[in-house]
Amino acid sequence: MSFQTLRSVKFQDCDPAGIVFYPRYFEMLDEAVEDWLLQAGTWHYPSDGNAFEAGPQIARIEVEFHRPSRLGDQLVFELRLQGFDERRMKISASVFSGNEQRLRAFLDLGWTGNERSEGGARLPSLLQHKLARTIDA
Amino acid sequence: MSFQTLRSVKFQDCDPAGIVFYPRYFEMLDEAVEDWLLQAGTWHYPSDGNAFEAGPQIARIEVEFHRPSRLGDQLVFELRLQGFDERRMKISASVFSGNEQRLRAFLDLGWTGNERSEGGARLPSLLQHKLARTIDA
Amino acid sequence: MSFQTLRSVKFQDCDPAGIVFYPRYFEMLDEAVEDWLLQAGTWHYPSDGNAFEAGPQIARIEVEFHRPSRLGDQLVFELRLQGFDERRMKISASVFSGNEQRLRAFLDLGWTGNERSEGGARLPSLLQHKLARTIDA
Amino acid sequence: MSFQTLRSVKFQDCDPAGIVFYPRYFEMLDEAVEDWLLQAGTWHYPSDGNAFEAGPQIARIEVEFHRPSRLGDQLVFELRLQGFDERRMKISASVFSGNEQRLRAFLDLGWTGNERSEGGARLPSLLQHKLARTIDA
Repeated sequence: MSFQTLRSVKFQDCDPAGIVFYPRYFEMLDEAVEDWLLQAGTWHYPSDGNAFEAGPQIARIEVEFHRPSRLGDQLVFELRLQGFDERRMKISASVFSGNEQRLRAFLDLGWTGNERSEGGARLPSLLQHKLARTIDA
Repeated sequence: MSFQTLRSVKFQDCDPAGIVFYPRYFEMLDEAVEDWLLQAGTWHYPSDGNAFEAGPQIARIEVEFHRPSRLGDQLVFELRLQGFDERRMKISASVFSGNEQRLRAFLDLGWTGNERSEGGARLPSLLQHKLARTIDA
Repeated sequence: MSFQTLRSVKFQDCDPAGIVFYPRYFEMLDEAVEDWLLQAGTWHYPSDGNAFEAGPQIARIEVEFHRPSRLGDQLVFELRLQGFDERRMKISASVFSGNEQRLRAFLDLGWTGNERSEGGARLPSLLQHKLARTIDA
Repeated sequence: MSFQTLRSVKFQDCDPAGIVFYPRYFEMLDEAVEDWLLQAGTWHYPSDGNAFEAGPQIARIEVEFHRPSRLGDQLVFELRLQGFDERRMKISASVFSGNEQRLRAFLDLGWTGNERSEGGARLPSLLQHKLARTIDA
């Protein structure tokens, strides 16, 4: 399974060196994961007026930065499921501009719910189901 | 002249009250202005490897917040040129979700260049030219 | 009444033009208001594990930007209460670096609670009480 | 060598789940590194009016998130130099609130200058000198 999303580098992403300020990449990665879960129908926002109920929660992330990105660059975020169990998904992400790889990331994502248990909640069964079909595909 | 752009409310835009953290609206407004200037061909990013050369610079902003926005809301940003002279553009912005107006903003934008003069640089002549045609239309 | 807080301009506050990206000022202003309310004992964070309960909510803001701020500038934020009624506080803010005024802001702040009523909640009575003493002083 | 800095969790750091939105930690880590380099006298901001000249640049980062942080938490950032060569510093960071470790991070930092060479610039000699004394201490 892979998921792709696009994003252009905006003025607000860049620092005085004229390149993407690296913490902004984590906002972009988080948004890419959010878009992927929403599109796969395995997560939804709280209904109007309700407080936050449950969602993905980062457990570990590792990023190698290969080349800087500049104002106006078109970035492609490509996410891949590497594996999962009841409490964790392993996702890899590559960010390209054209043929040039800008960074490579590895995320371990858990789940959080209203009842916060030690070590996080279990992944929702619908999500596990979809992940299983993905891995088999 | 008017310019419209869309943006959905993401997790990273929202605060612990579950609504858009208001400083995020200023990032969104800034991005909308950036998109408008780029699309109108009156601004461009520095060419690869160069430092920032020139661009819009805020002089004054006024915002009335009517209703909060929530996770997943689809926001429409509508910008209108209200007037301009050699050193300032006056722009109004309305942000809607469906028929509900979320906020209304008024921006005075100047210009900044490499030679920073007191009171800011003049608007580029191409920009003034396009603004004049817009006002006459 | 006035409240002062300090903040130095960090790398993450600045844009490719090497000056504070203006939406960052709104985060700084919001933090200054937060610090003022907390220090005055008129607001508190939710107790551990609880969701957000109530707090200030922006209704209107107006900012005039006088001079840009640069990396390493020491900024003084000075807040003053201009007036209040049951649903709104009016606060002015000046931001200085040395003797140079960088911006001047006017904020109308309402209140939001769990029961969101049209037009916002009333200001908490303790807050109104403290504001009244302030105005008389 | 170790460097400590404090930061309290503010409203703007938190997400609708009421905990620190994880990309904010990277801004905090970046600020801690910035403060450490400035305080050690091994980096300085550009002089007034000049463009960005040179500074640290992230090459790799790895973070394990142990426990979430909440509004008002007092966070201690503790940085340690693990090693360095001509082009890279290896730094570890621990973030605590009281006795509870919130996260642990490992950063490889390079350097960037005006003349951008493949693989980044060399660490400035003053910085290498200070790092060497640190390691020996």
